[in-house]
Amino acid sequence: MTNEALLDSCAFNAYGLVPAIAQQHDTGEVLMMAWMNAESVAETLATGRVCYWSRSRGELWRKGETSGHVQRLVEMCLDCDGDTLLLQVDQTGPACHTNRRSCFYRAVRSGVLVTIAEPEA
Amino acid sequence: MTNEALLDSCAFNAYGLVPAIAQQHDTGEVLMMAWMNAESVAETLATGRVCYWSRSRGELWRKGETSGHVQRLVEMCLDCDGDTLLLQVDQTGPACHTNRRSCFYRAVRSGVLVTIAEPEA
Repeated sequence: MTNEALLDSCAFNAYGLVPAIAQQHDTGEVLMMAWMNAESVAETLATGRVCYWSRSRGELWRKGETSGHVQRLVEMCLDCDGDTLLLQVDQTGPACHTNRRSCFYRAVRSGVLVTIAEPEA
Repeated sequence: MTNEALLDSCAFNAYGLVPAIAQQHDTGEVLMMAWMNAESVAETLATGRVCYWSRSRGELWRKGETSGHVQRLVEMCLDCDGDTLLLQVDQTGPACHTNRRSCFYRAVRSGVLVTIAEPEA
């Protein structure tokens, strides 16, 4: 798959990165948000396996490479001003390093931040 | 509503901002991604109307203030490392300035970036 059209339209920030939202394609659950550089976008489109850029490690982050919790790419979307990606994925197991399905497991309720999802067994 | 618990747990970046993903609460559609500072987070929790920080204008951006396309906050969630918000919202009309429901109206298909949603009538 060529991806020049996407990369030309993608507005990477001053660090060469763009935020990427991962959404489970069939349930609509938002799983996580991470960052991609041009190389990780190209690899993701080429392989169909989602690859981010780890800002903390400063290297490509092939999601699930050690945990097995991979994300198969179903569709990659770009927003109106080209500075955010939405990845429709098929997530194997939990997306979060806390072993929860989604990283967004805390919510503000009655003014308090509460845990709304537990780790998977 | 107090919101100190959230603000204490929220890891704003070097510019005092955090990305916020807006998702239609009942359909699961991801509508947009924008940025919030502490003031806009506090206002959103206090009023129940979503208020972002406009990086281009350098001011609070009360979503829909001129267009009427407001976002009512249903729930505010925080991710595992505290640096991304997920807003469950009820969106009036289109979320995108192009008059589309979602800002993510372009997708990579067969290596080409194509438009997958048209503006609302």
